[in-house]
Order: sequence, then structure tokens, then C-alpha cells
Amino acid sequence: MLQTAAVTPITPVQSAIDELRVLLGERLSTSTGVRDHHSKDESWHIPHRPDAVAFPNTTEEVAAIVRVCAAHRIPVVAYGTGTSLEGAVIPEYGGVVVDLLHFDQVLQVNADDLDVTVQARVTRKQLNDHIRDLGLFFPIDPGADASLGGMAATRASGTNAVRYGTMRENVLALTVVLADGRIIRTSRRARKSAAGYDLTRLFVGSEGTLGIITEVTLRLYGIPEAMAAAVCSFDSLEGAITTVIHTIQLGIPVARIELLDDVQMDAVNRFSKLDYPVKDTLFIEFHGTEAGVKEHAEMVQSMAADNGGGEFKWATKTEERNHLWTARHDVTYANKALRPGCEIWATDVCVPISRLAECILETKKDLKEGFLIAPLVGHVGDGNFHLGFLIDRNNPAELAEAERLNERLVMRALAMDGTCTGEHGIGLGKMKFLTAEHGEAVSVMRDIKRALDPLGIMNPGKIFTM
Amino acid sequence: MLQTAAVTPITPVQSAIDELRVLLGERLSTSTGVRDHHSKDESWHIPHRPDAVAFPNTTEEVAAIVRVCAAHRIPVVAYGTGTSLEGAVIPEYGGVVVDLLHFDQVLQVNADDLDVTVQARVTRKQLNDHIRDLGLFFPIDPGADASLGGMAATRASGTNAVRYGTMRENVLALTVVLADGRIIRTSRRARKSAAGYDLTRLFVGSEGTLGIITEVTLRLYGIPEAMAAAVCSFDSLEGAITTVIHTIQLGIPVARIELLDDVQMDAVNRFSKLDYPVKDTLFIEFHGTEAGVKEHAEMVQSMAADNGGGEFKWATKTEERNHLWTARHDVTYANKALRPGCEIWATDVCVPISRLAECILETKKDLKEGFLIAPLVGHVGDGNFHLGFLIDRNNPAELAEAERLNERLVMRALAMDGTCTGEHGIGLGKMKFLTAEHGEAVSVMRDIKRALDPLGIMNPGKIFTM
Repeated sequence: MLQTAAVTPITPVQSAIDELRVLLGERLSTSTGVRDHHSKDESWHIPHRPDAVAFPNTTEEVAAIVRVCAAHRIPVVAYGTGTSLEGAVIPEYGGVVVDLLHFDQVLQVNADDLDVTVQARVTRKQLNDHIRDLGLFFPIDPGADASLGGMAATRASGTNAVRYGTMRENVLALTVVLADGRIIRTSRRARKSAAGYDLTRLFVGSEGTLGIITEVTLRLYGIPEAMAAAVCSFDSLEGAITTVIHTIQLGIPVARIELLDDVQMDAVNRFSKLDYPVKDTLFIEFHGTEAGVKEHAEMVQSMAADNGGGEFKWATKTEERNHLWTARHDVTYANKALRPGCEIWATDVCVPISRLAECILETKKDLKEGFLIAPLVGHVGDGNFHLGFLIDRNNPAELAEAERLNERLVMRALAMDGTCTGEHGIGLGKMKFLTAEHGEAVSVMRDIKRALDPLGIMNPGKIFTM
Repeated sequence: MLQTAAVTPITPVQSAIDELRVLLGERLSTSTGVRDHHSKDESWHIPHRPDAVAFPNTTEEVAAIVRVCAAHRIPVVAYGTGTSLEGAVIPEYGGVVVDLLHFDQVLQVNADDLDVTVQARVTRKQLNDHIRDLGLFFPIDPGADASLGGMAATRASGTNAVRYGTMRENVLALTVVLADGRIIRTSRRARKSAAGYDLTRLFVGSEGTLGIITEVTLRLYGIPEAMAAAVCSFDSLEGAITTVIHTIQLGIPVARIELLDDVQMDAVNRFSKLDYPVKDTLFIEFHGTEAGVKEHAEMVQSMAADNGGGEFKWATKTEERNHLWTARHDVTYANKALRPGCEIWATDVCVPISRLAECILETKKDLKEGFLIAPLVGHVGDGNFHLGFLIDRNNPAELAEAERLNERLVMRALAMDGTCTGEHGIGLGKMKFLTAEHGEAVSVMRDIKRALDPLGIMNPGKIFTM
């Protein structure tokens, strides 16, 4: 007769960890410090520790890790730089975080074809440093120096999207490890193709719920002959937004056109030691030939003047331009400095541009009537804007107020045929709005999720519950 | 005791037709003439008659038709203008063709947002006629006056794609009827979104195998202030292609840049009564401000001169430009006129632009050694080019030769990291190359197909077999 074992039963997670340790040795960590580091992102969402963190070296190792996790039915969450703003990389259900730290090589620059293939953890700044001497650049710029794999996974965009598009338009192909360990390449390097389903676009924006991206092929652009940036303050928000709308409608190819409201400008001035007027302000950049930049800048200047805009303050030298955009990119830190110790509840929506002024003005009215500070900044050429609620995460009244204001913002955007997130992704924070936005189409997303991840192990609890 | 019926058993198809007749009355046809009309497209592929043709009036009627077909497990094939070049609309397995003839309304023009929503059978010319007085246009131009639903379903592109992108970049949202009759809207009108899986891009290019597109929301563009087109003949194909490559690499925003080889120019001259030199030739168009067009044209002219190009022959007036592009678009008829009574076996591939010259030159060498005439025309700014083999479809030797040359062309493009079709789609003609191009990724496409069309009723036998 067999004797019943008296020891603690081995959990599926422990079994998986044991197998992964054989596979990875010291490149599997269960230390508290490493798990803590991988429990959070840059959002306000509550951290949650994974059971282990794996540091694979190759796509084949990622596939082996996923197969082990599938065999034991435990979650797998891909991790790049941890700069998500909606909790996309927080391992809500524990399991194994796959940190792509060692996927840091630029694999192939095809300068003649204006494309590049990188490993997923190469960051956008690293890529731009690598290709600058070739006269090339990669424009997508979400602010954070995010990994390009993470940017693909969240369909990132940012300040340059008005001219160059988002990750949707700039990813040519991906290498992806699927939930059963299959490794696929979604496309080839041709600029366009009509050969079968667009798997590239399916994985772009899937937030790790369908597979893990290990390599990314991207479009590149020649560094423009001329670049000039300007700052212009407006008497009214309407005037600033009308200038943006006319610019877009006339097809003037601005490279960036960013709105910072008066609250945001105050924060920026304090943090970056600048002295811009504390008014609703546009930051604008032009790319092109010398003559083209001049012509386009004059057209926008004239429209701004017609709409209550002041003088254009120009930054044409590289250092001046960098200083200006650093100030723009540092808004998160500037906002945190407004209320030391606070968390930022960042949210973003995107609406058709004809509704943008209305959407922003109603939102500002909401904010005025509430009690939270929330600077506003927007990639307004796309109809996309952000609020950052400065909150004490441990104060239930503040959380409730941010939630209330966020819900009003999102439902307003949806009522205007907009989206609950232009670029941050669904993650944890926007899940409750997905059906309000997409209706029956969510059932199709679930069909696809079930077909590609029947065990539900890939970044579970994100985008939707299965 | 029951008596066994002595009548002919009713087939599933007949049962479906009976039910559809109750639903649609005279808008269901089983006449030979109507079925013949829906048995073919503009390709060389062998026609096949459907069992019936339905002419629904609404998306809900399309859904009802699909539910009937699902209940009886018979094929459903969507039909727009029948201008496919790869047999995408040929009902290989019979069943019901859903002709979207009555889906001919422009539903909503949002001029301020530069977008429009149309029913699926609105053609691109119809749309452009509708919006011209608003100063707007829709650029995607595959040559044929195709339906916009069909263009979305095949991920069409054409001459303007080098500047404005393809249907992939220009469809904002779709209304789709799924294989079980669910009706979804894939997205809202915001210019960008990070809210869930990109269903829009999944249906763009799915060739009716995942659902039937009934409405399309598209990006629009302001008609440029200035447009100018030019024709330039080159001493060598290499010179023409080098000019194209340098233009793209410098980021000069040409609106179109088309290559026609000497064989093609001869056909065009004869058919359109023109007298261009019978040489490898570029047709180029510039869009922008007056100053921008002038500057960009001068840059390209200078590069052309450096590469053995002759004078630019300009067409700036609208009529001259239209005449020029009509000649370009009439190449199919021009080619048919080279050999009266022939069929055109049209094929297209797309390669990274650095490999374009090599790919075209090797292909021309193949053609020289073979015995078929095949003019070459290309959207070369994208690395995309076409051959049209002039064949007698009833001559097995000619079919075999076209097949041999086509296979060599495709395998050459794939070896250069290109695609087996840049814009015609897989349809019937390119199915055998899908695995060569995508490898394991085809299994993921099949997973998605099975998840969304488990009965396999949506345009069966296209893209891949289940």
C-alpha cells in the first residue's frame, strides 16, 4: 500500500519555477527585490508581485518559458521598460514576468530601404543614437524612453504622430512567441502587402495578451534638412484649438502640434525654470526643406494671429529645440513637483478633431467644479489629450474623485465618437470602458483571444476578462 | 406506418434558396444570366457560377442572409464591382453571392474631421464626385473604379500609395457582418486609438473570408493647392529605378511615381494615341503648395538628369493630367489590344526598394527567354510592380508558361524579403505561395479563420483552405 505524502503539495507555480530554473539557471529570479521591481509600472495602479522573473537571451528561450508556463497553466507577462501608464505590465495574477532585458541589440539597419529590425528591448533613444550618423531617425515618441517592443505592444504614439503616424503605421513586421510556444514572423519587409491577414496590426496594441513580441521591424525616415520649433501663447483655449483644426484641415504637414493648458504651463515653468506666459499654449514643430519649413511656419503663424495667438518664440538650434521638448516631455515630473509625494493618475482620450474644443472645455469645467488638480496636455493635431490627476493613492476620497472625473471624460469622448484611450492602452484602467466603446465587437476580440490563448495565460486580466 | 417520400430530396442549397426567397422576394435571383455575371471577375481565373445571387438592402438583411447560409452550411461570397484580379469573388464552391449593389449611399461626410462613411458599394469615383465641391478627395486609386468595400476587403492601394498609404492606412472603421450573423462596428472615428485589438486592420485584406463589409469609414484629404504631373523617359531601367530610390530616400513627398517599361509604353502609345519614346519611363505627380511642388519637382528633375533621364514633359492643367493618368490606367485595355481576344494574367509582387532594380531586371531577363508578351508597370515608389501576361486561356502551353514565369517572379520576390502580392490579394491565384511567404504564421491565420468562421462558409477556398 502506498503511503500518503505528508509534505506540502507542490503548487503548479513551484513546479514551473523548478523547470524554469533548469532552463535558465541564474537568469531566473525569485528574489523579493527583483519581484518588487517587476510588480509595477509608472501608473497609479496598485502593484502586484510576480512569482518569478525570467531573463531569457533568445526568442527560442522565450518560447521555452511560455511552454513551461502553459504546461502548468500559470500567467506569463512580458516586461520591457515598465513605462506603461495603465498597468499593462502589472502581473495581477502573479506568474512569471519575462523581462526582455537582454533583447537589446539593433539587428539590421537597411538604410536604403528606410527600415530597421531591432530586438524588443531596444529603446527609442537607443535606436535613434544608433542611426543618427546614417542621417536617419525613428519619429515615434511617447515621451518615456520606452522599449520598441513595448511601444508596439501598446500601439504607442506621442508628439510626432500627427505627421508620422503611430506604431500602427510604423511597424513593418514582428517576431512573436505565441501562447503555445509557436514562433512566428508576421510579415516581410515589403512596404505593403495584400498577402493574407494583417497579423502585424493584430499584435500591435494587443498588450501582451496574444503573444510576446521579441523582434520589431520599423520604418525609418531621413532626418529632415530643416527643423524649427516654436511656442505660441493664446488668449483662449478656443483660439489655440481653432488654430490646430485649421492647420490640419489645410493639410499643413506639422511634425508636432502640442497643447499645454495654463495649469500645465505653470507646472512646466516652475519645474524647467522657464518663463513662458501662464496661458493655454501651443508647442509646434516643422520638418522639411528650408523653404518648406519657412512657408508652413508662416501659414500657421498667420492663423495663430487670427485666433488670438501671440508671437512665435522660435527654437531652431538643436540645443534650443531639445530644451523645449525636454520641458514638454518632463510634464509628468513637473506635475509631481506641484504636489510632492503624489501619484499621477494619467488618462487620455481621443476624439474627432471637430469635437476637440468642446470636449476639452467641458472637461475643464468639470475640473473647475471638482477638487483635484489635473494639468492638461494634448497631441491635439490627432484630437488626443491627456489629464494627469495629482492624487494621494491612499486617500479614498481622492481616488473616488479621480474615478468620477475620468469616467465623465471617457463617456464624453465616446459620445463624440471618440475612443477611451488614444495611446495609453486599456491595461487595467480602461477595461470597464471597452464594451461601452466597442459593443458587440468585444465578443470578436474575445473569440480571437480564446483561439490564440485558450488557457488564458498571456497577461491575464488585461484589456478584458476571458 | 409512415410512407417513404418518393420525391427528390431537397438539398441544403435549395432549402437555403427557399428561405432566402421568403426573405428577399425578387431580390434573390437564380437566373442563368445573373449567376453568370457573378461567376467571374477581371482575372484570368476560370469562372464558376453561384447557386443564387442576393441583393440585400440593409446590413440587417445581409446578416439574415448569412444566418440562413450558416444554418444550411452553404458558401456566402460578397460581391462589389467584380474587379478583382486574383479571383477573390469567384464562388468556387457555389452557394450564395451577396451583391451589395444597393449599398450605394454616401452616409456621412465629416468635412471638418476629414473623414467620410460610405456604404460598401460606393465606388471611389462616386465618392470623389460627391466630395469634390467640399475641396476634399480620397486618394486611393487602384485603377479600376472599384467599390470601397471591395477595396477594403482586398487591402487595395495603387498609384497614390507612395504618398497617402494604402487601404490599411486609410480605413478608420468598418461595419462587418460575421459568419454567425453578428454585426459589429470595428472602431470609432478618432484618428488613433489604443483600445483593444485592431479589428479594422484584421478585416482589411481578409477578402471576405472572415465577414462581409457593409460600411466603410475613410480618411479624406484636402485637394492640394497645386498639382503637377510629368513624364520622363530613361536610357536604362537602372537609371529610372535609381531616380525612384533616391527620391524616396530623400523623403521627397511625390504623390505618384510610376514605372512603365518599354513594352508597356509601346502598348500605351498605340492604344491612347500618344507618341512618347518607347523607353523605360516614369510618370510622376507632385501635390502641395505652388512653391512646394516647384521645389520638389526641381529636385527630382535634377536626380533624373543625373541618371540618364530626358526632359520632363509637364501636364499641369487638370485635363492634361487626367489624359496622362487615363493613359496609365488604361494599360490593361492597351495590353489586351496588343493581342486581340487574349486574357491578361495579372500578377504583382512587392520588394524592399533596395532590391527593386535587381528584381525587375532578372524578371525582364526571364521574359526575354520565355515566349509570352508581358508588359511591366509598377508603383515603384513602394517597391511594387506588375506583369500582365497576354495569354490564350485555352492554350495549356501558354498557361504553363505563365505559371512558370509567375512562380519564378514570386519566389524571387520572397527571396528578397518581399511579398507574393503587394495589392492584388491572394484570392485563388496566390494561395500556393502563402506558406512560402509566411511559414508558421499561416497557422495563426487559420486559427483566426476557424474562430470567426467555424463552419467555413465565408468565401471558402480563398487565401487558404481550412
